[in-house]
Amino acid sequence: MSEKPKTNPSQPRKLRDVAQWDRETDVAIVGFGGAGGCAAIEAADAGSSVIIFELASSSGGSTALSSAEIYMGGNGGTRVQQACGFEDTTEDMVTYMMMAAGPQADEEKIRNYCENSRAHFQWLVDIGVPFKDSFHQERAIMCLTDDGLLYTGSEKAYPFSQQARPCPRGHNLYVEGDNGGPLFMKIVTENVEKRDAISVDYETRALTLIVDEEERVVGLVIRQNQQELNVRARQGVILCAGGFVMNEEMIRKYAPMLTAGTEPIGNPGDTGSGILMGMSVGGAAINMHEGFISLPYYPPASMTRGIVINDKGQRFINEDVYHGRLGAFALRQQSDRIYFIVTVEQYGDYERVSYLGAQVAGTGETVKELEQELGLREGTLQQTLKVYNEDCTRGEDSICHKAAEWLEPLEPPLVALDITPGRGAFVPYFTLGGLDTLPSGEVVDAQRRVIPGLYAAGRTACGVVRRAEGYSSGMSVGDATFSGRMAGKQVASAERS
Amino acid sequence: MSEKPKTNPSQPRKLRDVAQWDRETDVAIVGFGGAGGCAAIEAADAGSSVIIFELASSSGGSTALSSAEIYMGGNGGTRVQQACGFEDTTEDMVTYMMMAAGPQADEEKIRNYCENSRAHFQWLVDIGVPFKDSFHQERAIMCLTDDGLLYTGSEKAYPFSQQARPCPRGHNLYVEGDNGGPLFMKIVTENVEKRDAISVDYETRALTLIVDEEERVVGLVIRQNQQELNVRARQGVILCAGGFVMNEEMIRKYAPMLTAGTEPIGNPGDTGSGILMGMSVGGAAINMHEGFISLPYYPPASMTRGIVINDKGQRFINEDVYHGRLGAFALRQQSDRIYFIVTVEQYGDYERVSYLGAQVAGTGETVKELEQELGLREGTLQQTLKVYNEDCTRGEDSICHKAAEWLEPLEPPLVALDITPGRGAFVPYFTLGGLDTLPSGEVVDAQRRVIPGLYAAGRTACGVVRRAEGYSSGMSVGDATFSGRMAGKQVASAERS
Repeated sequence: MSEKPKTNPSQPRKLRDVAQWDRETDVAIVGFGGAGGCAAIEAADAGSSVIIFELASSSGGSTALSSAEIYMGGNGGTRVQQACGFEDTTEDMVTYMMMAAGPQADEEKIRNYCENSRAHFQWLVDIGVPFKDSFHQERAIMCLTDDGLLYTGSEKAYPFSQQARPCPRGHNLYVEGDNGGPLFMKIVTENVEKRDAISVDYETRALTLIVDEEERVVGLVIRQNQQELNVRARQGVILCAGGFVMNEEMIRKYAPMLTAGTEPIGNPGDTGSGILMGMSVGGAAINMHEGFISLPYYPPASMTRGIVINDKGQRFINEDVYHGRLGAFALRQQSDRIYFIVTVEQYGDYERVSYLGAQVAGTGETVKELEQELGLREGTLQQTLKVYNEDCTRGEDSICHKAAEWLEPLEPPLVALDITPGRGAFVPYFTLGGLDTLPSGEVVDAQRRVIPGLYAAGRTACGVVRRAEGYSSGMSVGDATFSGRMAGKQVASAERS
Repeated sequence: MSEKPKTNPSQPRKLRDVAQWDRETDVAIVGFGGAGGCAAIEAADAGSSVIIFELASSSGGSTALSSAEIYMGGNGGTRVQQACGFEDTTEDMVTYMMMAAGPQADEEKIRNYCENSRAHFQWLVDIGVPFKDSFHQERAIMCLTDDGLLYTGSEKAYPFSQQARPCPRGHNLYVEGDNGGPLFMKIVTENVEKRDAISVDYETRALTLIVDEEERVVGLVIRQNQQELNVRARQGVILCAGGFVMNEEMIRKYAPMLTAGTEPIGNPGDTGSGILMGMSVGGAAINMHEGFISLPYYPPASMTRGIVINDKGQRFINEDVYHGRLGAFALRQQSDRIYFIVTVEQYGDYERVSYLGAQVAGTGETVKELEQELGLREGTLQQTLKVYNEDCTRGEDSICHKAAEWLEPLEPPLVALDITPGRGAFVPYFTLGGLDTLPSGEVVDAQRRVIPGLYAAGRTACGVVRRAEGYSSGMSVGDATFSGRMAGKQVASAERS
């Protein structure tokens, strides 16, 4: 053990080994992204003093790198939803999010998120986040216009649409281009800076937690200017240090499915240190195997009119789902290849606007020609297209249940893109596992007992979104900001130790 | 915190809170199944004193409830393999097991297992485990004859057979009927009892670990006759307490995929307490989401000649794979129903010999009639069968790559069984996650640093087998007995504290 670093996130420091407190605060927050910023604002507004410790030299986290779409609705609809003519219900939102999370859903957390979602919208507006009352019609991964609302998930797609009335819930900031993240964090940072009760220490690494004899978290050890300092947190510590997508060893160990991806999505601080710190004091890390992994096949939205097949020439997923769901199902096939088949017209400006970067695997003046070029068993793609085209004419996809609005017979000439993960296509990924928390943000152990003094939010916690196959854009920043607020409020109500 | 039980597996006892040692031993072992028994024998034979603490009133664990097939081979072949004419190689065995474990494979552990597998066979023979030098030809989940060797996995099936030369590695004890488990544990127990250095305390619950100031595990707290006792373990504690399949809350939290199963496979002590104890001192629990989950569709072996389809009328898996692999892929389909289609002849004595219990969903004098009865889209099953039957005639399954020996055209009348999980079929499951260990059995933390004094084996550890889709019968008892031995040897070499 002698060669190991003295202070590391997996070994909490004992209070008895703390010679003196170098800093004192009511609330210590690790990480200044969307979660940490919102947690700080709520804690300060409830009367606590707060220090945020941020590894980087400025605020931002992964929220600033994102589009900052925010998944909100229910309760009759947010102001934007209502202005655009959508009357969302809490039950539809709960049903959708429960289906999205599947068997690992945390219903209590999802209900809390949905029931308070319109209020969360209002809170964001109150701190100055601008949303335009306009609806973006086109199918998009991110909104490049300044429209305030769009569909960002699989709400209109099978099987979700069978059980929850579809409603758009992706709220986009009032800004042109993919600039929501920087704007959002600018607003949050301004809100933090104008509160005297909050101070921010940049270029500061949180090393490990400090626990007392009763295993209560009473502070943390930080490193600043090459010095280790002991920080006392009288009310508690909130871990908002992101996920572990940048930690290759943890990915291999906990989320090996993600090794099929090509591009980790996050910031360099997403090393899992927050999760490890929580685990070191008994916090349960759950859903660690899951992650977002995707084949971002639109734009152009016209790709949705194409079909995806495996090496058996079979369709296996409705192509109008969210791109992450398509990616998840593509990875589950026992198949050497996955192809996206489109007409030349649907291919359209793919090369200019696509993020996917998949290469053309074949073209055909006839279906048979394409079938041969792809090395598919004779008759398989022909049969698949025969059935599909008949279904398009009838207006009902009997095989995969793609919505009628996307059904259009595929007439040659056809183009096949090789979207097999590992064959050149862009396959982004990030983690969806983290510390198990109550809706309040309190970290719990494997038997769901609260660990006193410890809170987590954002990707360090395991939030409302739990699976690639149920992901919708806006759920991460939605969860980060909302869970940050919950933790900030809760810690501010704790007694000072 | 006041209402919580004073002693629980998630909170280790501090050495300073130990007033006196009630028992002392070199090695304390929690659990007397296959892993615990083999660990005790090795530790004692290396000169350590051992106490095994077992919750039940007799030895056995899940090993005694199993068929006790043991997955062994490589190194030119075990005595039984060689006698039956199979010359296994270590590299083929490593390749197969690496494919089976997939991206979460622990190569170091698999190599150690395979390289020492023939020696493990010999060790078992030396303690008195009998194997007959005979090969069981028929495809079976468990061997009901006394034959010593059979194929128990997907060795001969695509894609495994493409990369690793098939070889049978399932070793079955020399006993008629499904009686391997009880016989195996009888032999292990006799070996334990005849060693003076080992004592066994039955009806004893391990409550929690005891750690010193340096976080070294130095003993454990047990409960016997309603009394809590402190046990000093001078060399270390080995956790062999099984998995967590009987802990519904842990299943929901960590392995929600398994909630699709109908029957947990294990013993009542599989509550995860060993894993929780390891986690409480910083041990990393890995692969916790994974489990064995199966549709045990054979016997009769003739079912292998049938085909499995989803609600699109598509095949998606070669039907000659191990039943767990078929189960895993069935669960991954976006499909309301999964059917097994067989001819009346293949159906054979299904009702008498099958474990599956799936109900007949439809029959058809023609394919079209069956297609209608199952509510499949017109033409889909007809096309699937047309292609399949052509492929059978050609002797090559171009769609799913089922081996030629199982290809036989399906001629009506046909029977369809509804094997959709949740619709009546027997879907057994157990967990495959546990404490991360080195090949030596030493438990490591999330950063792979050894936790001094702590060892784990069997299902409490995360062993060589990691996925339902790569499972083979015999891997669990193989891993339990081998990993138990590794831990027993390692702990016996530790310095006494």
